[in-house]
Amino acid sequence: MRLHPVILAGGRGERFWPLSRRGRPKQLLPLLSDRSMLADTVARLSGAALPADTFVITARDLAGAVRQAVPGVPRHHVVGEPVGKNTAPAVALAAWWLRNAGDDAVVAVLPSDHRVEPAERFRDELRAAAETAIAREAIITFGVPPTRPETGYGYIETGEAVSGIGGISGRGSAFHAVKSFREKPDAATAERYVAGGTHLWNAGMFLFPPRVMLEELRVHAPEIARLVQSLPDRVGEDEAALERYYRDAPSVSIDVAVMERSKRALVARAGFAWDDLGSWEALGGGESADAGGNVGRGRTLLLDSKGVIAFAEEGMIAALGIRDLVVVHTRDATLVCPRSRVQEVRELVARLRSEGGGDAFL
Amino acid sequence: MRLHPVILAGGRGERFWPLSRRGRPKQLLPLLSDRSMLADTVARLSGAALPADTFVITARDLAGAVRQAVPGVPRHHVVGEPVGKNTAPAVALAAWWLRNAGDDAVVAVLPSDHRVEPAERFRDELRAAAETAIAREAIITFGVPPTRPETGYGYIETGEAVSGIGGISGRGSAFHAVKSFREKPDAATAERYVAGGTHLWNAGMFLFPPRVMLEELRVHAPEIARLVQSLPDRVGEDEAALERYYRDAPSVSIDVAVMERSKRALVARAGFAWDDLGSWEALGGGESADAGGNVGRGRTLLLDSKGVIAFAEEGMIAALGIRDLVVVHTRDATLVCPRSRVQEVRELVARLRSEGGGDAFL
Repeated sequence: MRLHPVILAGGRGERFWPLSRRGRPKQLLPLLSDRSMLADTVARLSGAALPADTFVITARDLAGAVRQAVPGVPRHHVVGEPVGKNTAPAVALAAWWLRNAGDDAVVAVLPSDHRVEPAERFRDELRAAAETAIAREAIITFGVPPTRPETGYGYIETGEAVSGIGGISGRGSAFHAVKSFREKPDAATAERYVAGGTHLWNAGMFLFPPRVMLEELRVHAPEIARLVQSLPDRVGEDEAALERYYRDAPSVSIDVAVMERSKRALVARAGFAWDDLGSWEALGGGESADAGGNVGRGRTLLLDSKGVIAFAEEGMIAALGIRDLVVVHTRDATLVCPRSRVQEVRELVARLRSEGGGDAFL
Repeated sequence: MRLHPVILAGGRGERFWPLSRRGRPKQLLPLLSDRSMLADTVARLSGAALPADTFVITARDLAGAVRQAVPGVPRHHVVGEPVGKNTAPAVALAAWWLRNAGDDAVVAVLPSDHRVEPAERFRDELRAAAETAIAREAIITFGVPPTRPETGYGYIETGEAVSGIGGISGRGSAFHAVKSFREKPDAATAERYVAGGTHLWNAGMFLFPPRVMLEELRVHAPEIARLVQSLPDRVGEDEAALERYYRDAPSVSIDVAVMERSKRALVARAGFAWDDLGSWEALGGGESADAGGNVGRGRTLLLDSKGVIAFAEEGMIAALGIRDLVVVHTRDATLVCPRSRVQEVRELVARLRSEGGGDAFL
């Protein structure tokens, strides 16, 4: 088995303002370590896949910054989309380019900006899922057992258990048929999902042999399947064809285009911890917190403070006697906001966009 | 009458960190306008005194920055003290250099970093006090009617009324004998002072004909009077003599050395508003506040916030849903602290001083 990671890095993400900026979205930020989320994602695969086998699909204007962030990935493997068309066209592209990569090839479509740990467990499960994808000619998605009734995530309802290949010790049935996909449920429904035990968080990761995905596209998304054939055989050839492909392709997620309809979809019950890191709040708590529940990144001095998330990109943050706030310092901007209201940072960014001169801070 | 302002600008002031730094203390900060407090102080005198007649006494290492801040003041009128010796040696120095300035010369010793407004009223009262100082051969200090039982200020107890020269309309007796000086009283005493009506805040301003001050020094501070005679006749001559003077002079305030003992001390009851601007809290409230009681300086975006003091030196501060906090942004540091605890910023600075690498932010 040979893994070909295809990392989706086209997001914009305004919720990490003022750290995230127009040319530097979430996946390029050092949110969880000293390197970017994207570089963390590539590093996490070390030992399971080669950088030379890795692709990154991003927005065209971000391609340069992405190449700098993952110098080990071949330059021409960083694909800049001329226009974002959700995930299905990108997944189809990867399947097309890798269709002749060999019978042991498995594509692993992975988000670039999520928290996944521990890395070793993740790699083990990735390998087992890849073996199973080959053996069963399946498209495998990872489902994460929910730990809270999150209304911002998608859920996968699991069906009957399916035995996998290269199973991981210490877990029950790792693979299940997919019964249904549910996008962002209301709070009561989410509570039921958590209590019921048959719903898993959709982590946005997909493994498949390239030809299996192309066949499923032909059945469930024929327009994309047709368009993708107009592309050159290899990545990096014929930019004009890529341009036309993105111009003509429908904007649709791979979940809707294929996963919800395919009989070959399986869900792997994840044994690793996962978080989509949707806001500053996601950096709080956990093992990195001090005795007062404060989490500091960069140089911080938090006196008599509790439950503070302080992120100093450079320079420093000094605080005294504050509670449950997010404080972010960058060279040209400071953000202060209660942890409970970090979702509204997007509105703040919207205000900046509409105000004279605010654009300079976006 | 010709006014010779002598502005004392030797303070260090850590309470405005992170805006105040080692080489940039409070008097060099643009706290109340777009120019430094010191430049505001010089500008406030416009029409009452000439920049060419103005002196600034500061610490030697600040002299360069001070000269830049007040380009209208002659370079050699900016005196850099090799070591701080409180106010009496500086006042004696000014009296000595100006002793031959003419019978109409009045020295006005003024702090460089206080809020004084309105400027026109201040100038009028300065002129009236100067005329009175000449006519009565007096040392006149300004006393400000207290508006709150402030325990951080010094108080002057007034004695019998004395008629002045060039009086200001709309006030009662402007001049009084000085009965006593009281440094920082306890809260109960301060309450009594405010209720009693005979105690005024000591604003640290002194007006006197130079020879009157030299005579009073001879009587009450003979050591300083002796030492000052070893200085050259004019400012800027003989740096070595200045060095010896500051090495040998006792460290004592002009209040203690002269004012508390002199029979020629008078207090002018101030009709202008005055504040020593002791902390970030002093920037709050007042006319500059928005409907939510927020005061923003520099570029700020304060959504759904109340009672916030936000100071962005450059770049910007964005806040959402916060209350009664001070937020300061500089290029390399952010401070967040409740308004009620701004006095503790000094402790924060002390912590920075003792921590490895913290020095870089002082």
